[in-house]
Amino acid sequence: MILEIAQITVKSGMEELFEAGVTQAVPLFRRAKGCVSMELTRSIEIPSRYRLLVGWETLENHTIDFRNSEDFQSWRGLVSHCFDGAPQVEHARQNLKGF
Amino acid sequence: MILEIAQITVKSGMEELFEAGVTQAVPLFRRAKGCVSMELTRSIEIPSRYRLLVGWETLENHTIDFRNSEDFQSWRGLVSHCFDGAPQVEHARQNLKGF
Repeated sequence: MILEIAQITVKSGMEELFEAGVTQAVPLFRRAKGCVSMELTRSIEIPSRYRLLVGWETLENHTIDFRNSEDFQSWRGLVSHCFDGAPQVEHARQNLKGF
Repeated sequence: MILEIAQITVKSGMEELFEAGVTQAVPLFRRAKGCVSMELTRSIEIPSRYRLLVGWETLENHTIDFRNSEDFQSWRGLVSHCFDGAPQVEHARQNLKGF
């Protein structure tokens, strides 16, 4: 399993709009090939900073299948006007599941 | 639930030692007050970058209870010699659980 960690800074005053956009986008991720989980977290120290955490079966399910899909365009259409700069996207593997 | 996100850069060549230290530290987190989960991820794009993701019932369970405990000293004793610079620690709340 691959964890996509997308760090997204949202423009001041657009937090509610952004959160509503992510909620609307849930079905896009749910039907994306290889997408196994999706959650949104919000930083306590820097409240304009969100992290979208998306689980994928393979790296390519995100970087090729999803990014080249129409649903990716729909996803960006729902939220990108709220972005303050480009999201910082990284992928990670689970190394240890303690508990 | 609060998610602690500790981004840790590990010195080159010390990755295995660091991972072994985190494995040894699992019982310290398991018995920490309010600690509900713990996992370690490793970045694909930047393999020296790990993220320790720890779930806490409250922010203070981490910032006060754990950080002032002897187990925190033990935890740091197990892994801090592998750190390349200070960890970047942040806390987040789950905003939306899509699926």
